[in-house]
Parts: sequence; C-alpha cells; structure tokens
Amino acid sequence: MAIERRTLLRGMSAVPAAAGISALSGLESAAAEDVPPGFPKPTRHLQLYAVELPDYDGEPRLGYGHDPDTASYPGPTIEMLEGESIAITLHNEIPKATLEKLRTDKNIPLGVSIHPHGVRYKQSSDGTLHSGSWVAPGEKRTYIWYARPPARRKGIAGTAGYWWYHDHVVGTMHGTAGVNGGLFGALIVRRRNDPLPRHTYVTAMGDAMTLNLRRYPDTDTYDPKNPKRTNTSIFAKKGERIEFVNISLGSELHTWHLHGHSWADNRTGVIDDVPWADDIPIIDNKTIGPGDSFGFQLLAGEMSGPGHWMLHCHLQTHSDQGMSTFFHVHKKNGDAPPGEWPPEHGHGGM
Amino acid sequence: MAIERRTLLRGMSAVPAAAGISALSGLESAAAEDVPPGFPKPTRHLQLYAVELPDYDGEPRLGYGHDPDTASYPGPTIEMLEGESIAITLHNEIPKATLEKLRTDKNIPLGVSIHPHGVRYKQSSDGTLHSGSWVAPGEKRTYIWYARPPARRKGIAGTAGYWWYHDHVVGTMHGTAGVNGGLFGALIVRRRNDPLPRHTYVTAMGDAMTLNLRRYPDTDTYDPKNPKRTNTSIFAKKGERIEFVNISLGSELHTWHLHGHSWADNRTGVIDDVPWADDIPIIDNKTIGPGDSFGFQLLAGEMSGPGHWMLHCHLQTHSDQGMSTFFHVHKKNGDAPPGEWPPEHGHGGM
Amino acid sequence: MAIERRTLLRGMSAVPAAAGISALSGLESAAAEDVPPGFPKPTRHLQLYAVELPDYDGEPRLGYGHDPDTASYPGPTIEMLEGESIAITLHNEIPKATLEKLRTDKNIPLGVSIHPHGVRYKQSSDGTLHSGSWVAPGEKRTYIWYARPPARRKGIAGTAGYWWYHDHVVGTMHGTAGVNGGLFGALIVRRRNDPLPRHTYVTAMGDAMTLNLRRYPDTDTYDPKNPKRTNTSIFAKKGERIEFVNISLGSELHTWHLHGHSWADNRTGVIDDVPWADDIPIIDNKTIGPGDSFGFQLLAGEMSGPGHWMLHCHLQTHSDQGMSTFFHVHKKNGDAPPGEWPPEHGHGGM
Repeated sequence: MAIERRTLLRGMSAVPAAAGISALSGLESAAAEDVPPGFPKPTRHLQLYAVELPDYDGEPRLGYGHDPDTASYPGPTIEMLEGESIAITLHNEIPKATLEKLRTDKNIPLGVSIHPHGVRYKQSSDGTLHSGSWVAPGEKRTYIWYARPPARRKGIAGTAGYWWYHDHVVGTMHGTAGVNGGLFGALIVRRRNDPLPRHTYVTAMGDAMTLNLRRYPDTDTYDPKNPKRTNTSIFAKKGERIEFVNISLGSELHTWHLHGHSWADNRTGVIDDVPWADDIPIIDNKTIGPGDSFGFQLLAGEMSGPGHWMLHCHLQTHSDQGMSTFFHVHKKNGDAPPGEWPPEHGHGGM
Repeated sequence: MAIERRTLLRGMSAVPAAAGISALSGLESAAAEDVPPGFPKPTRHLQLYAVELPDYDGEPRLGYGHDPDTASYPGPTIEMLEGESIAITLHNEIPKATLEKLRTDKNIPLGVSIHPHGVRYKQSSDGTLHSGSWVAPGEKRTYIWYARPPARRKGIAGTAGYWWYHDHVVGTMHGTAGVNGGLFGALIVRRRNDPLPRHTYVTAMGDAMTLNLRRYPDTDTYDPKNPKRTNTSIFAKKGERIEFVNISLGSELHTWHLHGHSWADNRTGVIDDVPWADDIPIIDNKTIGPGDSFGFQLLAGEMSGPGHWMLHCHLQTHSDQGMSTFFHVHKKNGDAPPGEWPPEHGHGGM
Repeated sequence: MAIERRTLLRGMSAVPAAAGISALSGLESAAAEDVPPGFPKPTRHLQLYAVELPDYDGEPRLGYGHDPDTASYPGPTIEMLEGESIAITLHNEIPKATLEKLRTDKNIPLGVSIHPHGVRYKQSSDGTLHSGSWVAPGEKRTYIWYARPPARRKGIAGTAGYWWYHDHVVGTMHGTAGVNGGLFGALIVRRRNDPLPRHTYVTAMGDAMTLNLRRYPDTDTYDPKNPKRTNTSIFAKKGERIEFVNISLGSELHTWHLHGHSWADNRTGVIDDVPWADDIPIIDNKTIGPGDSFGFQLLAGEMSGPGHWMLHCHLQTHSDQGMSTFFHVHKKNGDAPPGEWPPEHGHGGM
C-alpha cells in the first residue's frame, strides 16, 4: 500500500533526503548558546541568503536561497519533523540601495528577516522590527524554530502542517515589499507516520494576477520531451504521490483549483480507514486569504489519467489574466500525456 | 427518526426520483464505446442543452436545460451516487453570433462546454479548449463523469459532496462569459446512507450583487397563497428536511448567511451520534470564494418556527444592493407564516 | 491539568462570574409571558442600551452597553451555556436625529435592533425590519434567545461556538450603518465541560483598515507598567488560558493572524487526547469574510515565552494601514516582557 510503504522514516536523517536540504553542519556556537529554555537542541543548521534577483515586468524581485546563487522565489522549501528544532542563519546580501528604494517611510530601518508560520520561536526569532530580530545589509543573524509536538493533555495541537516563512521588515513594518517581491518559501512540518510524497510543488498566489509571482505563460516552462523540476514546471507520472503546498500572499482573495483531482479538507488531504472520514469535506477548490497556506497529497491522475490538468485561481478575472498553470501528468512509463503541447489556442488570457 | 427513515435507497432508481432528473434512456453507442478504463459503465445518459435566454438588466443570459425549453440559470441540479458513472450529451444551441459577441479575443474558438467539480473524468471530458473537449455551435458531445467511491486504503476520500458544473470556454479560456452568463448548475454526489432531503434549493452568489444572477426583489418570487418551487422561490413546511447547495462564481468574495438556522461545518451539515461531533464547528455564515461550493441539510424552522427568514450575503454592500432573498417557512399544516407579505417596508436595498 | 480543572461549573451561576455579566434579575412579566413553545424558561434577563458615542476620525460611532454609561464598541460579550435561554431587553437611546442622518433611504424607519448569530429565536426576536422586531427611539423591546443543545438523533449540531450579535436596521435594511458604526458584540455559547479561559478578548475586523473600529496605534493602549483590560489592551501572564473571539464585519476580506502561537481549526481551538485529533488542521492565520466569527483558546506564550506578539490582518495593505495590534505576554510573575515599549521604530503604518 502506497501510503504505509512510504511513511516517514523514524530517524531525522529522513528529512534532508526528502527535502533536498543540503546544509547539515554542526551548530555555530552563537546558535548553540542561544537554544531557548524548553526547546530541544537544534538537529540541523541551515544557511539562508536574501538577495536581489532580476526584475519581472518592471517589478523588483528578491529571493532566498541556501546559497546566493540558487536564490529563487519561492525560496527553498524547508521540512521539519514534529519534535525537531532547527537553526537558520540568515545573511542579508540585498544591496542597501535596493532596500532604500523599497521602503515607504524613512523611519523604517534597512533590513531583512525571516518570520515563520506555525512553529514556535522566541521574540528574538520573530523576524519583526520592534523585537529587533532583523538583519542589516551585509550582516547575519541566527533564528531558532521549534516544531512543538502535540501536548494532548494540555489541549495543544502540535505543529504538523503546511506553513510558510517570509520577510517581515522590507518596505514596511509588515514586510510588504519583501513578501510581494519574493522573500517567502514553504515550510512543511510532518508528523511521524505521515505519508511522504515523491515530489512536492509549491504554488503561491499573489497580487497582480501572479502565481509564484509570474503570469501565464511564464508560470509554465514545461517541455514534454524534457521535463525539469523548477518553480515553473509541475509534472508527475501517473500514480506518483505528489504534494502541493499552496500559499496566499499580498492583499487579495484567491481560490486554489485543480482539474481532474480532489482531496480531503483535513490536515493532510488524505484519509485513513477511520469512521470519522465520513465527516470530512472533500474539495477541489479552496478559498485562501493572504497569510493562509495549506497543502495536500494526491496520486497523480488517479482515475482521471494522464493529461494537461489546469491549476488556476478560480476568480475569473485572475485566471483570465494569467493566474494559471498546468499539472502535467505523464503516462506511467514516463511518456508525455496525449495532445499537442503547447496547445494551438494557447491557454487563455487576453 | 427523520434521518434514518429517509436515507438513500439502495438502488440507483432512488436518484432520479429524488433529483427530478427526467432522462433515463439507454446509452448512445458513442458514449458506451468511450467508457474509459477504470470507470464503471454509465447507468444513466442525460441530455443537456446550452441555449440563449432573455437579457437581465441589459446583461446577456445563457442557460443549460434537459431540453431547450426548460433551460434556466442555475441549470438543472444533477445528482449522483458514489460509485456511479453517468454520460451527459451536451448540445450547443447558442447562436454563433451570441458567442461571437461574448468572446474577448478572436483567437478563442466559438463553443460551449461542461466542466464538473469533484467527479473524476478523463481529459476528453474536461470541458477545456486545450483538451479539445468543447462543442461548436449546432454540434454535440458526450462527457462521462465518475463519482469515484472512497479508496480508504489508498487514502482517497471519494466524491460525496455538494459540487457544481459550468462552462469553461465561452468568452475566455476560463469560460468567464459562460459562467457569469448562467451556464452553471449544482452537482450533488451522495454517499450510501446519506440522508435524503424533501427539497433541494440552489443558491449561486455571483458578481454585480447577484443571487442566482438576479437582484432583490427578483431573487424572491414567493407568493404565500400559491408558493411554487422555482429558481427564485424558496420555502418549506416547518420540520421538513431541506437541502441548500450554495455556489460562488465570478470574481468576488461572498459569505452565505441564513437567519434562524445553523448547521455543522462538515460534509453534510448534519451530525451523527458520534464522539467527534464535539469537534465539528457549528456555523450560520460561511465564506465562499469563486469556485467554492458547499451544501447542508436542515429541518426547516427547527426551534425557530415558521417565518420569513432572510438568506443573504453578509457583505453589507452586497446585501444592501440586492444579494438577498428569503427562506419562507410555513406552518406544519401548510399555512403561510405570520406577518403580511410582501412586508410594508420592502426588504431593503437602495 | 489546566483544562480539566477549569471546566465549566455545572450551575448557571458560573456563567456570569466568567463573563462579567452584571444583570441577573427576575424576568420582566412581558418576557416571561412571551417564552416561545419549545424554549425553556429564561434563566437570566439582561439589559442592553444602544447609545451614540464620540466620533472616530470623523466617522459616527454607536455602542451597546449593559447600562448607557458603559456602552462601547465592541459591546459587552454575552456568554451562554447550551440548553440555556436568556431574555434581553434592548433600550434605544440613540438620538432620533442621529438615526436620521445615518439612514440611506427615507423609507427605512428609525430604529435599532439586536440580531444574534448561532442561537435559536422566533421571528419576533429576529431583529429585522420586515418582522417588526426593532425598537423605535426612546422605546424598548425584549428578545429571547435559546442556545439549543445538540439533538444528535435528529442530526442537529447544537449551538456551542463563538458567535456575535449586531444591529440589523440602522441605516439600511441590513443595518449597515449600525454594524459599521459599532453596534455589535461577541456571543459565546459553551458546551458543558468546555474549558473556561482566564480572560477573553474580542477582536473585530472591519472596513477602513480597522480593528475594533480603530486603527493602530489606537488599537493598542497597553501600558507595561499598569496594564488594564480594555477593548484596546490585550495582555496575559505566560501560561494563562486566554480566549480570543474574532469577528469580521463590513464588506471586506480579512485574515486573522497571531505571532508566536497556533491553534486547532476545530470548534474550540484545543484538542483532546482522541484519535481524530490527527485529522484536524493546525493554523495561525484564518480567512474571515463579513459575518464570520470564530474563536479559540491558547496558553499565553506556551513555548514561545513572554513577548510583544503581533496580532494583525495578514492583507499587507490592511496591516500597513493600521489593522494591527499586540498580544502582550508578561512573565509568569507578572513582570512586563523584555524590550522597550513602545518600541523605538513604532509599529508600522506609513
């Protein structure tokens, strides 16, 4: 059975393997000294660089990367296991002049930060201006996050979920220029025995009709003869377990819709053989306001087969103007789905 | 006990009776040949006609109907049972000149389609332009939908739910003119043993302050002395089990609110005598972004009694400008609720 | 264990103590006579006064209070226990001239009302114009609400939840000027054995970038040396059980986000040691459209520690322009959290 076979390995070593996280070095002394009371000692120490990237349609773009050369938007997906604590050192390599252009008020200091959703952290890892937990240009700072496990006797639900992390200080005190510019990424916290996907895709719905801050056809760089996993190419072989992590950022309403598939509206998107499964809504379209994130797993093309399946915001004006892409499901043997690609009539948009 | 007594009959024959679906003919040969691998043989074959209807306040209106003369917006509610597959032949009877006026770009071919939410279908039944699954003026095409049952060992949640179907090609590549013009309807998939309602009402919240594409008082054609079930008259006798299916379409946020009643925010709106019922939120107002649909059942006037109960979008500007109607709950003996109708002060709106 | 020790006492007398509700008088004869069939006899009789309050930034403000001098926006939080019925006498003390200025149409009568979410009431307690259940200037009217317990055999979910009540007639037939002006408050219905919080805070997100109809810094009147519980000062000692009730009103989308904490997205925000807890999503950001309300309990600073934790709408334009405040978590011994307050860089906004 697919789910049981691919559940999370018991050791921490499973996480980097699944997540593609490279850095697994010893803790820097600063971080080790700073482990807060109540937190376990961090098991991993990641490096994160905030950099400037080329403009998109005249709009400034920034990105996080595990090294400066691989920075992207969305930034790297960070995976944790409930019970685990990690340290992240953020390096601010964004030019001072760029931060100056982006700020809306002279009283806002020039800096960058990371603020996570879901996990526990002390004020010194909040990533906000008033707490002083931000990084001036050319400097670095270490943040510590803890994926608190459930404490059921105290009524505390734990941390497992599909979260995101983002800047909270570029441009405004809420990091509006940072978030809208590209300083964000997915944060996945798994519970032991959660199913593990073959591949994870991140889609962030933002302002100006953007999906991952791009508009169609820039949201889809898929080549059926040579598919490559990038931030703008979403594909799978039929039957593969695929995970989507979906983020809403900016200041607008969005709805996340995928053709040919549906999922359970619970913590993971999958159900077990349990009596309360009958009560869980099944959906294929989900309203997400800014700050929300959710995720789920599916079996690609299960009963719907190979195909070029649309993935779009269901606000008609948004999808018409470019907030749309495709989930390309290949045949089991890896052959591209039927139909010419790109299609004769394009995809849409005006 | 109301729920148990009126659960779904075991045979398929229960569905058309409950849904008022007329066509239950043999399959056309084309559809029978096309049953995809993995799908059961369709048990029913419906005909659906897409036609032009009279304008509303100067806005074009289209509709689906089981025959051209009964086309309406919303279109006919389609009911399925989990495990069932159905075939639907769509006939495009919308004048070519109308489709030409509605398209925003000369590259968009003239056609109409049906795209369902929730159910499984192959790319050839997707209802999208790029897959070629659309219908040119004067032509027809057969779509096959499968209400996949849960596969709990694989983590797949099934299909039971309150869904909708809609055009995906009129006007733009996302069917914006089709959807906003009236080419949509409710799709209900039931699980065996789900309670069956006495009556089902469909409410679709759309752009321009419309409920079922009309503004108050056109949303309510109720006559207390001679109530008739239409798309714009919602009523029941006290204690009757009523089902609401609620759709959000277009490009705006809405919230669905009903006076005098509440429901469980789970798959059906009702709870069973199970321990996890304590965890399920109870609501009387629900946020729905475009593409969302949800439904629930209630007992009309349960503890609140007969009355003219408001049903409206809770965005104040939306309800003030006409996105509002009434759920008229009569006495058990069928007598109209107390109070003059229509009321002296009208309902509101400017 | 915190939860079990502080569960709701069995007697009704626990409710006023927890809620700070003052009035616990005998029923007036009018209300007693009017107890509707099916409702239990009301256990409490509250007085509610609707009054005019000073403008805010040139915008009119109204409020409810248990007496005219304590009226505020939000109005007093009303707590009920499932199974309980209460009577509320509303006194309209808003000047006639003010109501005249606020109405958008001469056909709308001058009056005020209370319309509750969640609870059961007859048409005569609906608080709407067409039902005649409103109050002219200088007059009063008694409303009866019933927190219907679950009827599991009938599939009825009960009433326990985080609701709100509001005017439905000032300005328009949907009470737009009343709701946007301040005529609303939280309504909490508890189930027996639900955990009881040490303190409850109400946050209402409204139009014009307001939190409780104010913009930052007016949303936060906290003084670390002398914290006082008001509608604009949110604080706790580390480890205290705190309850948030969150309301969305007006005509805009909002998302409710709190730093340093998360909660279960179920009826109460807390989980029990039950198998289905694994299926419940964990969140720290929630989309709320107008009319929605939700609530949850948390342990202040649990694992995140003392701090000035931001609480804001996650729409970037909303938080930047003032829809933001702080949850100040003091040390266990009552000492203020570390860090200067107010902070050097202010909080944000332009």
